[in-house]
Amino acid sequence: MSLTVVGSIAFDSVRTPFGERDRMLGGSAVHFSLAASFFTDTRVVGPVGDDFGDDELGVLTARGIDTEDIERVEGGETFFWRGRYEHDLNVAHTEATELGVFGDFEPKLSDGSRGAEMLFLGNIQPDLQRRVRAECDGAAFVGLDSMNLWIETERDSLLAALAEVDCAMLNDAEIRMLTEEPNLARAAAAVRKLGPRVVVAKQGEYGAALFTEDGFFALPGLPLEDVQDPTGAGDSFAGGFLGYLDAHGDGHSEPELRRAMAYGTVMASFNVERFGTERVASLTHVEIEERFRELLAVTRFEERPIELRDASPTPSD
Amino acid sequence: MSLTVVGSIAFDSVRTPFGERDRMLGGSAVHFSLAASFFTDTRVVGPVGDDFGDDELGVLTARGIDTEDIERVEGGETFFWRGRYEHDLNVAHTEATELGVFGDFEPKLSDGSRGAEMLFLGNIQPDLQRRVRAECDGAAFVGLDSMNLWIETERDSLLAALAEVDCAMLNDAEIRMLTEEPNLARAAAAVRKLGPRVVVAKQGEYGAALFTEDGFFALPGLPLEDVQDPTGAGDSFAGGFLGYLDAHGDGHSEPELRRAMAYGTVMASFNVERFGTERVASLTHVEIEERFRELLAVTRFEERPIELRDASPTPSD
Repeated sequence: MSLTVVGSIAFDSVRTPFGERDRMLGGSAVHFSLAASFFTDTRVVGPVGDDFGDDELGVLTARGIDTEDIERVEGGETFFWRGRYEHDLNVAHTEATELGVFGDFEPKLSDGSRGAEMLFLGNIQPDLQRRVRAECDGAAFVGLDSMNLWIETERDSLLAALAEVDCAMLNDAEIRMLTEEPNLARAAAAVRKLGPRVVVAKQGEYGAALFTEDGFFALPGLPLEDVQDPTGAGDSFAGGFLGYLDAHGDGHSEPELRRAMAYGTVMASFNVERFGTERVASLTHVEIEERFRELLAVTRFEERPIELRDASPTPSD
Repeated sequence: MSLTVVGSIAFDSVRTPFGERDRMLGGSAVHFSLAASFFTDTRVVGPVGDDFGDDELGVLTARGIDTEDIERVEGGETFFWRGRYEHDLNVAHTEATELGVFGDFEPKLSDGSRGAEMLFLGNIQPDLQRRVRAECDGAAFVGLDSMNLWIETERDSLLAALAEVDCAMLNDAEIRMLTEEPNLARAAAAVRKLGPRVVVAKQGEYGAALFTEDGFFALPGLPLEDVQDPTGAGDSFAGGFLGYLDAHGDGHSEPELRRAMAYGTVMASFNVERFGTERVASLTHVEIEERFRELLAVTRFEERPIELRDASPTPSD
């Protein structure tokens, strides 16, 4: 078993009402691989510049992540994003995006990355996603993320990419936008017709929903009193989801897909509790296990046979 | 067991992308009582005008609802609301509100209504809620709904009303607004400090969350492919929730509160599938039972012991 992720490796400068960080390690491939590394062997494909140091690399290698395919571009600068969140953390503002080496990114995969059983195409230009997907032709299960930008500007490429993957992992707003269908159940069904037999609708703090041939499954978000920085939560979700599936499922078993949703929810819940990678990079197994059980506990209810009331009026007492 | 609800009885003119209805039966007390009537004896307190006919009353009496305390005001007109929903049904626009007899509403409760074990204070002016609550001094469990208008204009009255009830049933946005706390877990805890030991956060299509002394519980909304009119969904939720609790719980048992959340979710899901009261008023017991089991099925996942992966790098294969 092994899992390859292609996506951004970034420096993020983030300000939220609970603090700020300057040029901390971030990017979709980073958040994804850290979460996935608790479940399976994970390989990262992505470019960095001269400014990417041993400290940053060390965060990944300390988790046993294979960084062979992190390409260091001489004279280049690592992708940079600066954003701030309002008091309502659901409202984000991008203040700066500097593509740096990501602007000319040509994914190069080693044999190890190419031979992975599972592949996650993080949110990058859809034609790049397709090239990586074509290289990993032995991957048994491929997940894909995207964003509103590609839906608007690269629609045809994105549709072609979707036709070649097993699982679309998108925000519910993106699923609606992509399909021009405001009803999520219909929109998810429409995405499944485009190719992916599994659709995961990420709903931010509200949780996530799973749409498959077998039907529907949904999990609420965990009620976290200490949320500091939501950046990367969706990628941590994807990392927990695909990491679990690579280790314990094949993407076909519905019970395993549901457990994967739960581990995705767990990893995303840790992600937001601290800035950037701070929380996920230092998690313990016990913390993950406890939070999985907490999620189980807060979603469980039992049936009890009851007598429903007839329509006929009953005498008042 | 019996359940009294005070709230609006209305004519609603509603337009959605899926159709429109002119002056159909609506109002918080109507949606609530129809949903509750499948679980327990339900009494409605509220005013109507001369324009409220036998057909409208018949929708309630056909479900065995006690309408003794529906006060017909001579020469008055029934509360009227006209609204439209965008293609995204989460976006609603109020086009007209005519208070009619609701403007001078002075709740008058019969002995039957006053003696109810459970009481729901639908979304009306908080001082009126307090008067009704004071009259029903034997009620063992009292739920309260409110809205942004009262949070803004009658904050002190609303805080006094909240201090006198057991359960606040509010939208998550209202809970945040009331407490000026964007984090829902903290906001719900703050509402509990105001008095209600149970807080239900209604989250529209995303479901609902329950906050009690014992902790947290959440349910997703059901994935409905046919949603025609969301008007009244929150009141149908409250009706299912309190109706179930009156018949099968006392508002203290956590497992019963969770089942009440499930029946609330079930009744709200029916509410939105047709306009106004069309769907809930004609439900069968089998439909309710089947949808409860569907909700159980789409929220269930099981634990399976797994080995989490160590941080130490593993040799690549």
